[in-house]
Amino acid sequence: MPSYTAPVKDMQFVLHDVLKVTASDIPGYADLDAGFTSAVLEEAGKLASDVLAPLNPVGDREGCRLENGVVRTPAGFKDAFDQLRDGGWTALDCDPEYGGQGLPYLMGTAVGEILVSANMALNMYQGLTHGAYSAIHAHGTPEQKATYLPNMVSCKWTGTMNLTEPHCGTDLGLMRTKAEPQADGSYRITGQKIFISAGEHDMAENIIHLVLAKAPGGGEGTKGISLFIVPKFLVNPDGSLGQRNSLSVGKIEHKMGIHGNATCVMNYDGATGWLLGDLHKGMRAMFTMMNEARIGVGVQGYAVAEAAYQNALAYARDRLQGRDVTGVKNPEGPADPLIVHPDIRRNLMDQKSFVEGARAFTFWGASLIDRAHRTGDASAEGLISLLTPVIKGFQTDRGFDVAVAAQQVYGGHGYIEEWGMSQFARDARIAMIYEGANGIQALDLVARKLAADGGKHVMAFFELVKTFLKENETDDRLKAGFLDPLKAASKALQGAGMYFMQNGMKNPNAALSGSYDFMHLMGHVCLGLMWAQMAKAAYAALDAGAADRDFYESKIATGRYYMARQLPACAMHLARIESGAEPVMALKAEAF
Amino acid sequence: MPSYTAPVKDMQFVLHDVLKVTASDIPGYADLDAGFTSAVLEEAGKLASDVLAPLNPVGDREGCRLENGVVRTPAGFKDAFDQLRDGGWTALDCDPEYGGQGLPYLMGTAVGEILVSANMALNMYQGLTHGAYSAIHAHGTPEQKATYLPNMVSCKWTGTMNLTEPHCGTDLGLMRTKAEPQADGSYRITGQKIFISAGEHDMAENIIHLVLAKAPGGGEGTKGISLFIVPKFLVNPDGSLGQRNSLSVGKIEHKMGIHGNATCVMNYDGATGWLLGDLHKGMRAMFTMMNEARIGVGVQGYAVAEAAYQNALAYARDRLQGRDVTGVKNPEGPADPLIVHPDIRRNLMDQKSFVEGARAFTFWGASLIDRAHRTGDASAEGLISLLTPVIKGFQTDRGFDVAVAAQQVYGGHGYIEEWGMSQFARDARIAMIYEGANGIQALDLVARKLAADGGKHVMAFFELVKTFLKENETDDRLKAGFLDPLKAASKALQGAGMYFMQNGMKNPNAALSGSYDFMHLMGHVCLGLMWAQMAKAAYAALDAGAADRDFYESKIATGRYYMARQLPACAMHLARIESGAEPVMALKAEAF
Repeated sequence: MPSYTAPVKDMQFVLHDVLKVTASDIPGYADLDAGFTSAVLEEAGKLASDVLAPLNPVGDREGCRLENGVVRTPAGFKDAFDQLRDGGWTALDCDPEYGGQGLPYLMGTAVGEILVSANMALNMYQGLTHGAYSAIHAHGTPEQKATYLPNMVSCKWTGTMNLTEPHCGTDLGLMRTKAEPQADGSYRITGQKIFISAGEHDMAENIIHLVLAKAPGGGEGTKGISLFIVPKFLVNPDGSLGQRNSLSVGKIEHKMGIHGNATCVMNYDGATGWLLGDLHKGMRAMFTMMNEARIGVGVQGYAVAEAAYQNALAYARDRLQGRDVTGVKNPEGPADPLIVHPDIRRNLMDQKSFVEGARAFTFWGASLIDRAHRTGDASAEGLISLLTPVIKGFQTDRGFDVAVAAQQVYGGHGYIEEWGMSQFARDARIAMIYEGANGIQALDLVARKLAADGGKHVMAFFELVKTFLKENETDDRLKAGFLDPLKAASKALQGAGMYFMQNGMKNPNAALSGSYDFMHLMGHVCLGLMWAQMAKAAYAALDAGAADRDFYESKIATGRYYMARQLPACAMHLARIESGAEPVMALKAEAF
Repeated sequence: MPSYTAPVKDMQFVLHDVLKVTASDIPGYADLDAGFTSAVLEEAGKLASDVLAPLNPVGDREGCRLENGVVRTPAGFKDAFDQLRDGGWTALDCDPEYGGQGLPYLMGTAVGEILVSANMALNMYQGLTHGAYSAIHAHGTPEQKATYLPNMVSCKWTGTMNLTEPHCGTDLGLMRTKAEPQADGSYRITGQKIFISAGEHDMAENIIHLVLAKAPGGGEGTKGISLFIVPKFLVNPDGSLGQRNSLSVGKIEHKMGIHGNATCVMNYDGATGWLLGDLHKGMRAMFTMMNEARIGVGVQGYAVAEAAYQNALAYARDRLQGRDVTGVKNPEGPADPLIVHPDIRRNLMDQKSFVEGARAFTFWGASLIDRAHRTGDASAEGLISLLTPVIKGFQTDRGFDVAVAAQQVYGGHGYIEEWGMSQFARDARIAMIYEGANGIQALDLVARKLAADGGKHVMAFFELVKTFLKENETDDRLKAGFLDPLKAASKALQGAGMYFMQNGMKNPNAALSGSYDFMHLMGHVCLGLMWAQMAKAAYAALDAGAADRDFYESKIATGRYYMARQLPACAMHLARIESGAEPVMALKAEAF
């Protein structure tokens, strides 16, 4: 069975050596001293290793069952969820006014990574609740907040997002679910929603569904869409649970992975709902959930990869097979461990350098969200909105690749469910699809985010890279291994942007044909920037006489690997982008 | 439920326009006129579409069950296997002396692709039998051949390969299974083997296990290994079945995919076996099976991808979502089909250009095998031995990528088992692992095949590319789209070979650290060569006034896509290779 240990040391390095959180001017960050953050992360790590990780294969094996309209979660899930709740883990970065602990989003992200690594399916129940919490927090009336938020902060009640219908996923304008206004100010919601994660289960007293539906008078397409709060049990004025609402789970899906999470078809049969936010402005409110969910899914991308990597590494050290061609390493044993072999190393280094780079990238992104929310800094808001599709799309694609690569280290055992490596790959697969399939992330990046506010945010990103290069140009230790490849990668990204500007206006397909490659190219530049910053921080720690020299030297070596072995992908992506729309669009649809 | 249609037209194009089989000097090829090959392929396609493909999800859902020592295959498998047998499909390229039809290996490969696309798990039962047939055919005594081959050709009896043990997969020198010589010339085989595909099942009267074991006096490591024939039921002198042998299935594995194939733990408890081939030369005999199996797995790589692609394409045409940004394509409908969107195109073109390129590459490889076997041409033998790890490793990696990409086209539905796209990805995953994990293929390619016979075969390969480029240099239609990118890719491959030569002698890790990238780089060059040849053939057909102009024009467009969008990977692989061993090996094992 796979095991998991929270990478607290690595997280501390990002928080304190790289982001230098306590020196930041973001309100609340001064409190994040190393003693505090390590205590929180260690504690989360304990829960993750001892409670959540052992349940991960159980959830996969048992899955959820629908019995007489009730979904039964796998054995042990409810107890574990209670422990999550009781430990206050669901309330970490929530508003203290509603019982939250008010910690920065950054801390919620770091803890979230740990919980997801240990058990992605279980953690989704609280992750979705958090998204629904945020939407109500941002768009709800004072009464709605008072009614729902305290119990959602504690996860006594959980939440869901209801967007997709059988005939429409990405294209929400096709939506058929209807909301009819009632005399008392409520709405009657009627329609079917599919792919509703945690839509029904036995771990919470109530489930607060946020449902997109069309109310009369809103016009065609997405303009007519509003967002509604539709609780499983209506809530009485005194806060107690009232009548069962007219909604039910039609079936639960049999999926490739995340078996421990119930993916439901939800039927709303004239269910009672209340408008959340403005009428016919549901898409805006929904995006509050969605943007947060996309960062969360980006975390899933590398968090599952981290768990897979830890186990691949342990197996590579343990499994004896073949001899090191440069000289026997384990003369007492019948063979050397797998880790002596260069191709196994290459594989492990691919995994390690991605996961650590993605962690730094994500934590940086989370700190931008804190800056935007806690200081109202519009440039931080703009930058994170640019980076969100990269965090989601790039990290889930590469995270899946890493889970598959980790499985490969196990040879045949990787394919046998009992060893647990298949589950990591199967679970990781969904992250590329939900909350906007990765092709949609690429579209969002290229068609919307690049051009947003006159291209200001992507310019700011390039400026950031340029400033870093400039500030460190005299550092000979960074030059060849880090600065030069980062410069080349950034230049490729700029070249791609230039290509889009020059060609996209007269032919949008010239840009859209390269959107996926652009997303990956930008992901590599972001991780390259992170690795350059991490190397700088590691050298600084070494110069300052840090005790654990091995740790910092490993950081530098891992970074050098990423720059040397991963950044060469940038030129490939640029070449593909610059080949334009013609090769992509040449065939008529009938000619395929 | 997914459907499948055999791509007969595309196969015919490769056989007749590209390989020009009837004009070849390989004995037996003159009979392969277009009428004959299309009749065979259409007939196989009918069986595949009507019988095998509908059973594919059944096999996945039901899996195999072990009951009282007997493995029950999924409902319908036995009937379908009988139809395979009765149609003579298992005997296609087998020796007529033993009831085979004596067709070229090339035809067996084309039909094999069809059967695998429709139902990989079911087809493995006969695929492994064919491997065991080949080993007995090549190394058996006349008596052994007479005893076993006729029933194996007809698949009345099936076969297996028993290599792996719990503690040793790749490193067969660690093997513990023992063979003790008996007075009557037989051996008593004792030990446990794992991952035995089709090790036990209910579709054949007897199962002929080929088992690697150590007989006394052979010395350490792989030198002491011999190969034995160990039938489930001993065969009486009159050919009837005798006593049950002392072997049994310990358990069947619960796997990520290929659920319809029984992967068994086999226990040999003093089972009676007979030496196959020379004592202590078991590795050689085993490689007869292995090389064939590796080509077969390379077929699985692109065959499953073909099936996944067909369904992704159908979905992309059918599913209405969003509008073409360059102008509405389906004004009567609520939205345009997915296929109008550039990123969906990119994805579909990635799939299509890989599958068709891999088909041509594999068919060419199969024709090299025919040339080697039927004419004794040592250079063909050398070339295919060089290409085998590329066919296996590159095609299964990319084939898996394609299955995952096809799943992505379905959005959320791709993750739901009911739609069948998950099965393609899960089934395809094993092909990267078994018959030598792809890292081993890369090692075989770089450490053995490149240097074999003084590097003669890789030189011959480069010569072949050079000759093609030279012969067509005046063809302006091919130049920019095909010849230039092929030349650049081939130059990158030569650069990589040069790097290995200059650095590998003093540091083997410099070559081994780049082996995986080299395998992929070479795969791209091979597919680039195939696409250039296919484009040439398509232009020739157009010039000759071929009726179906759309087909040939699509070929050229698809080839242009591969050259423009896939070959840029070559420079990336070269850059990685040239970064050498240092980034890969920098970390000590303890420092990970």
